[in-house]
Amino acid sequence: MTKTDELLRRAEAHAETFDGSRLPARPAKQIAVRTCMDGRVNPNRLLGLADGDAHVIRHAGGVVTDDAIRSLAISQRVLGTSEIVVIHHTGCGMLAVTDDEFGSAARGGHRRQAAVGGRAFADLEGNVRDSVARLKASPSIQHEDAVRGFVYGVETGRLAEIPL
Amino acid sequence: MTKTDELLRRAEAHAETFDGSRLPARPAKQIAVRTCMDGRVNPNRLLGLADGDAHVIRHAGGVVTDDAIRSLAISQRVLGTSEIVVIHHTGCGMLAVTDDEFGSAARGGHRRQAAVGGRAFADLEGNVRDSVARLKASPSIQHEDAVRGFVYGVETGRLAEIPL
Repeated sequence: MTKTDELLRRAEAHAETFDGSRLPARPAKQIAVRTCMDGRVNPNRLLGLADGDAHVIRHAGGVVTDDAIRSLAISQRVLGTSEIVVIHHTGCGMLAVTDDEFGSAARGGHRRQAAVGGRAFADLEGNVRDSVARLKASPSIQHEDAVRGFVYGVETGRLAEIPL
Repeated sequence: MTKTDELLRRAEAHAETFDGSRLPARPAKQIAVRTCMDGRVNPNRLLGLADGDAHVIRHAGGVVTDDAIRSLAISQRVLGTSEIVVIHHTGCGMLAVTDDEFGSAARGGHRRQAAVGGRAFADLEGNVRDSVARLKASPSIQHEDAVRGFVYGVETGRLAEIPL
């Protein structure tokens, strides 16, 4: 049995007890969260989000890419969210990746820089500031005054706001 | 008080009871999940994932973009995951979006088609098959035999596998 099969058994149990049939497509808390794919970051648990409360947009690293901006534009302009929370985190697996490894990991012209922006990835606070600044400057984002950035400590469980 | 402030109070409570300081950067279940940003889709709850178990990669729609492939390549080649679960869902907010609305939502040359691939977005099963096929064909993905696609019913809580 694969790990996927194991998860599918749990999905069956989920369906048995499911009570979310009336949740709205438009997030109840009008929030969108941009963060990393890292399994230690659980935005729902961290922020106390119930199902249906918020959009969650995640990839490796969590910086603001074009793909993220497109999703956030849809989130605000079509689905009514008005605040954005950007969360990067300590101990990112990518911190241990060399540029060579990154190049070989992502064939086809991808670059470490494309994932993490122009900065050294270890500059967590700088990356958060860059991500927030990029959103505030984007014409696709309507509510540019309600974008805030944070670092989540995977060792501490604490969320620290990064002043701009 | 903004919604973000409200969530930050919950984040303080999260830190008080946090017990995940030893979670690994490499996902314990070697799984990566690709799905939509929709708040009704909670992959952790749905699949019974504990913190640290899996990578979760989400954007508007959940189809497999270049950005998603880059994240999945890092997930497999650098951080040791070996199975991919692709989950699209019924009742997507984007189903109600016209092409005109989508164009105005995502300025800067984005296109509805770029988010959902070449298909009508309503063809959920076709979109899942396309996403799985794209991953299986990508040289960036090492474990192409362990990619499976599903539709999640937001009205039923059920996950249905889509045969290829």
